[in-house]
Amino acid sequence: MASEEEVEKKYNLITRRLDEVLGGDIIKGILAEGRSPKAYWGTAPTGRPHIGYYASLTKIADFLRAGVEVKVLLADVHAFLDNLKAPLDLVTHRTKYYEFVLRAIFTSLGIPTSKLTFVRGSDYQLSREYNLDNYKLCTLATEHDAKKAGSEVVKQVESPLLSGLIYPGLQALDEQYLGVDFQFGGVDQRKIFTYAELYLPRLGYAKRAHLMNTMVPGLMGGKMSSSDPDSKIDFLDPPEVVKRKIKKAFCEEGNVAENGLLAFAKAVLIPISELRLERRQGDTGEDEEGKESVKPQKPFVTDDAPEGSVFTITREKGGGPSHYRTYQELEDDFAAKKIHPGDLKANIRDAIISLLEPIRAAFLANEEWQHVEQLAYPDPNAKKEVKKKKEKVYHPPPPGKGKNAKPAPAPVDGVAADETRASDPPASQPDGEAVPA
Amino acid sequence: MASEEEVEKKYNLITRRLDEVLGGDIIKGILAEGRSPKAYWGTAPTGRPHIGYYASLTKIADFLRAGVEVKVLLADVHAFLDNLKAPLDLVTHRTKYYEFVLRAIFTSLGIPTSKLTFVRGSDYQLSREYNLDNYKLCTLATEHDAKKAGSEVVKQVESPLLSGLIYPGLQALDEQYLGVDFQFGGVDQRKIFTYAELYLPRLGYAKRAHLMNTMVPGLMGGKMSSSDPDSKIDFLDPPEVVKRKIKKAFCEEGNVAENGLLAFAKAVLIPISELRLERRQGDTGEDEEGKESVKPQKPFVTDDAPEGSVFTITREKGGGPSHYRTYQELEDDFAAKKIHPGDLKANIRDAIISLLEPIRAAFLANEEWQHVEQLAYPDPNAKKEVKKKKEKVYHPPPPGKGKNAKPAPAPVDGVAADETRASDPPASQPDGEAVPA
Repeated sequence: MASEEEVEKKYNLITRRLDEVLGGDIIKGILAEGRSPKAYWGTAPTGRPHIGYYASLTKIADFLRAGVEVKVLLADVHAFLDNLKAPLDLVTHRTKYYEFVLRAIFTSLGIPTSKLTFVRGSDYQLSREYNLDNYKLCTLATEHDAKKAGSEVVKQVESPLLSGLIYPGLQALDEQYLGVDFQFGGVDQRKIFTYAELYLPRLGYAKRAHLMNTMVPGLMGGKMSSSDPDSKIDFLDPPEVVKRKIKKAFCEEGNVAENGLLAFAKAVLIPISELRLERRQGDTGEDEEGKESVKPQKPFVTDDAPEGSVFTITREKGGGPSHYRTYQELEDDFAAKKIHPGDLKANIRDAIISLLEPIRAAFLANEEWQHVEQLAYPDPNAKKEVKKKKEKVYHPPPPGKGKNAKPAPAPVDGVAADETRASDPPASQPDGEAVPA
Repeated sequence: MASEEEVEKKYNLITRRLDEVLGGDIIKGILAEGRSPKAYWGTAPTGRPHIGYYASLTKIADFLRAGVEVKVLLADVHAFLDNLKAPLDLVTHRTKYYEFVLRAIFTSLGIPTSKLTFVRGSDYQLSREYNLDNYKLCTLATEHDAKKAGSEVVKQVESPLLSGLIYPGLQALDEQYLGVDFQFGGVDQRKIFTYAELYLPRLGYAKRAHLMNTMVPGLMGGKMSSSDPDSKIDFLDPPEVVKRKIKKAFCEEGNVAENGLLAFAKAVLIPISELRLERRQGDTGEDEEGKESVKPQKPFVTDDAPEGSVFTITREKGGGPSHYRTYQELEDDFAAKKIHPGDLKANIRDAIISLLEPIRAAFLANEEWQHVEQLAYPDPNAKKEVKKKKEKVYHPPPPGKGKNAKPAPAPVDGVAADETRASDPPASQPDGEAVPA
């Protein structure tokens, strides 16, 4: 049994900054018994993961610090189905690549990975038991409910495919087969989560809790084309590439509604900054292993920032730095045009470059990862094929992969930065993006 | 290579009396190469099979005589899904029971079973490959097409279940996984068959031919309730039970539109009579083994019937017998009130009793079968349970199991006698029908 205080502290760490929690009592009950909750977060290894993933990963860092056993589902079966034209080999390489990247990110954040497990969908999603359960579910679930479940994440087209109706059920079964207490995802998954809560008990399985992250608009903001290879920042982008991309980002003076950079600061940079400050204060949670990595983890503030600051804006053309204790203060200053877009860009750019530096270093030090990277995302310029005319068959994205996920407050590009399972459809993946090595 | 004449003869035997053939050239091509076509017919082992199955089985007899390798799919997975409340064990026993009955029927018809194989759905429908193909199909097939495919056989209800959309695809995959050249079923399966023809090639598999039997209204005709245990004749019914049931059958003088007995004569008795006559003339087709069984196979005509007669109506109350060369002659006489309903009933009753006699004898001689029968269809009166209130959850029937299959020419009960995969939903199965042993 854990003390009420301990329970409360861990529960707050697990649920802070979330958009919504369903079934929080399930988690509290497990914590009260002194057990470690088990959680899963799924991602389909399709295109190169970009830094929008940080929004989910920083939240997962909280879970790990609270002692949660986190399973990352690398949904390779879904990735394969997402693009049947891609050979199965490619998916295998991409699955490996995703694991390399995600592990490197957690390490770079100083979060130990001893309670983090990677599971492949193909490990169990093609088994007899799982498939019989899928068929069972299909004899219990109505078309109406399945359609509603997928309505946020499956692109609504004129001729919807069956997969859009099946995937929500598979995602429900994953909770059972991964043996978790809660599933984590973007709030765009809400209807899939409530579908799981409705139907798993009808199959005789326990209802799980669901923790939902806020959706974040794309970092690059504005009306940038998603087919533009510069529209997303890759985890392996070197500083000069990050600079070029950030330079292109839409960032209008005083405009906080359409500002992917501010959204990124709110969802990623400030949480990481806070994480680092907490750890410096000795608050490493369950992460005994991670204590060693506290030192190099610099919050995004200057050394002269007052206690409690979580973000600093330095200025290139005169004017001293501004220190912020909360995101809101930062946003208010930008709205009041007290921060020039150029200065916002420069500070966010430098924060991103510093975040990516250890990941890139780990990549350059790891030959196996480099080899996998080449196999997973071969240079499209290496062999110039005659571009075949595309068949106009619409492949719906796997659950969570949708483009209409973000009910954006303003006409941003609609690409969710918190792409829990999100990626663009293959055609618009910046797969061919050059990664100077 | 086979001669053109041989090809034509076999092809005619394979396709005669069918309602429709799709892809006949596929079969002709195989025959022309001197190969044996492979076919499959599926049935879900749910309720006790009744004599409506004869309509399919007499057609399968033609296939076997033409050298076709016939696989009977005992769709146990579908049977299990059809009634999740029934334990899996029960389905296993029922699967065995179906195999016993079906084998006994072919033997009783003098049709050798060396080219007949029984396959269980669970042998391959839960495998990795099959399920991956199912998922693939779901990313290719539209909801619209899947819905249309099931529209004839899946009961159209307000809240349709997902299974109704999935089953047509599984039935398509069965063709590939059973390695057949054509699938046989009732014409109510037409839309499922064309769905298979559309989508198998999209998965990279060959398009198969589809042979469809005419739908036959229920033997008992009229407005008999399907919950009436006397509404169907079981293959194991002893003569006195057959008599009682036939006595109850709806049969109105001169009314040929609503007459399940005439329909049964047309779809089952006359074809069997013709089969027996052909065999007596030495025309046993490929059935070398079956030659021994020709003698006891008496056509449904009296000994004094003129050459070419296929059915005789004898009269109880005076008047000599009438012999018919075709079904149409029989129907015309009934329409013209030249046959009294009582005489039609008596002759059809006797024909049925003679058909069932060897099946019942085989059952009584086979202890294993008797044991399986008790396990598969336990006497509901043996342990009187308090009847639980039924949940109002609609379970759609597996493909081919529908109640609205027959576009009946008149308001008959709508139960297809040619229930290729047809059975009533569990609630109305005459499972509890007493079978005096």
